[in-house]
Amino acid sequence: MRTIQWKKGKVRIIDQTKLPHKLTFVDLQTVDQVVAAIKSMKIRGAPAIGVAAAFGCVFGASNLKKTARQLLNSRPTAVNIKWAVEQMLRIARAGKGLSLPELKKLLLKEALKIADEDVETNKRIGRNGARIIRTGMRILTVCNAGALATVDYGTALGVIRTAHEQGRKVHVYPAETRPRLQGARLTAWELKRLKIPFTLITDNMIGYFMQKGKIDLIIVGADRIARNGDAANKIGTYAAAILARAHGIPFYVAAPFSTIDFNTRSGKQIVIEERSPEEVTRIGKEQITPKGIKVANPAFDVTPAKYIKGIITEKGIFKPEKLLQIREHRS
Amino acid sequence: MRTIQWKKGKVRIIDQTKLPHKLTFVDLQTVDQVVAAIKSMKIRGAPAIGVAAAFGCVFGASNLKKTARQLLNSRPTAVNIKWAVEQMLRIARAGKGLSLPELKKLLLKEALKIADEDVETNKRIGRNGARIIRTGMRILTVCNAGALATVDYGTALGVIRTAHEQGRKVHVYPAETRPRLQGARLTAWELKRLKIPFTLITDNMIGYFMQKGKIDLIIVGADRIARNGDAANKIGTYAAAILARAHGIPFYVAAPFSTIDFNTRSGKQIVIEERSPEEVTRIGKEQITPKGIKVANPAFDVTPAKYIKGIITEKGIFKPEKLLQIREHRS
Repeated sequence: MRTIQWKKGKVRIIDQTKLPHKLTFVDLQTVDQVVAAIKSMKIRGAPAIGVAAAFGCVFGASNLKKTARQLLNSRPTAVNIKWAVEQMLRIARAGKGLSLPELKKLLLKEALKIADEDVETNKRIGRNGARIIRTGMRILTVCNAGALATVDYGTALGVIRTAHEQGRKVHVYPAETRPRLQGARLTAWELKRLKIPFTLITDNMIGYFMQKGKIDLIIVGADRIARNGDAANKIGTYAAAILARAHGIPFYVAAPFSTIDFNTRSGKQIVIEERSPEEVTRIGKEQITPKGIKVANPAFDVTPAKYIKGIITEKGIFKPEKLLQIREHRS
Repeated sequence: MRTIQWKKGKVRIIDQTKLPHKLTFVDLQTVDQVVAAIKSMKIRGAPAIGVAAAFGCVFGASNLKKTARQLLNSRPTAVNIKWAVEQMLRIARAGKGLSLPELKKLLLKEALKIADEDVETNKRIGRNGARIIRTGMRILTVCNAGALATVDYGTALGVIRTAHEQGRKVHVYPAETRPRLQGARLTAWELKRLKIPFTLITDNMIGYFMQKGKIDLIIVGADRIARNGDAANKIGTYAAAILARAHGIPFYVAAPFSTIDFNTRSGKQIVIEERSPEEVTRIGKEQITPKGIKVANPAFDVTPAKYIKGIITEKGIFKPEKLLQIREHRS
């Protein structure tokens, strides 16, 4: 079961706002619908929204520049939308002179390829990362970097999943990840289905469990990695990295190599999306705060490279400060 | 308006589970009702539950040993229940031989005195603590250590309130404090009523705002302070202290001197209450997680003395490592 797939001319996604209570699918067939699904987080997770954007370009092929702008404005922090849209624009340029149906066919072929490659990439990330996991390890993760954040299999959770499939006995501590509760709703749902043992904790329990010696390793995903190794990820990741350092716990980032944005010098240049205050003041239908108060809601934060022990990609595990060298070496 | 008061033979409390939506009062008139109100957190906050326990002893005067046991078992971490119950037992011993109505009268007088002294104590804590606050400071606090956690005025929030009343321009960042959301529900409610400017944040945003240079000071309450200066407080306090240290931000605890438990050598001896998993899996009527999963819910954590710059009490501000000396000096 894929988080996002092409079905008879439409994009079928799992509606993640309905999880963990109902597994429901939504079909999208216009650029506006794709943009709305990304903004409302019906589909979320850096790799998954990248693939959604690629399919969005198919729907908006007749005016690809406008489509690209709409998609790029939907969520600013993750590099994946930018990466996917630029790839689709390159394909369109190569197919200059084609009729619209021919162009759409060409773009669809590329979007399907990006989607398929995402699954392969994740499995490679899983195999590369699983080497750092010893049996019995208790692993903290924040947000959801699982199958639901990607086309399938997952990045950070993919690493844990591979270790689990290889027979290592792991125990996962997902942090619930306010305000959108991706840990409590999505990661818990995935771990339960995969029968990987876990204990859900609230975000403010991370320090406590580290202090008690109950966390051996942290693996998180990433939305954008600057070329100096600074990594943007879900809000709370930075605090988890600081806490990990204070307790001598290794902190890893798992993400496709394409998450590394070589055009971004450092984390300071990464735009942090500020989302609606209602995500903080309400949970589901429940208003939890007094009305009319001031609330902050930055959706991401940036973990400086010095707190990251390694970046697990499909090409291997890299020290964050070595990213530039690796690109030069491989290009 | 007091959080807890004696009204015509009954204890009248603000029902804190109904805030911030409704300000409602509940009258208690038996030990069982007092214990139930403490366990369900209709009344909460270390000083407030201490006073509730003192009134509980009035209701249970006919079998004070059993009453004491019930109250001591209601919540284990805060020292205040123990302190108040022991004080009431001392009074009862002094009144040995009295008739039950006479004993009740004696106990009530003591409970009322404890309640009144709490307000005075808090105002002194406020005055002592306000000296560390400079105008323009942005102050983080976790949980609720305000009027609602005490009989009136508050401890950590009392310090901030005094500085505000003295005309210093402060801005407060209350952390929402999962799972029970005391920051989002109670501290936000108090700050709004007091017209003290604030921005509510989720617990996992603390690191982000420190990294951005937006927090100048942390003040929290305490449920029990060991004689070596280790302080137990709401879960998440320890992580906030570690983050404060990493960012060079001073971290203070504000609490009545009676919160210092000289019978407890270090934080390792403090019992951490584990509360119901439903507090994590549900918010209000909303189930947020998959059903039947494993969840942790420690209600408190312990911040080692070395992370605490000062303990603000009604007797002055003390370095945590100097507590024993102070007792010897003052007794």
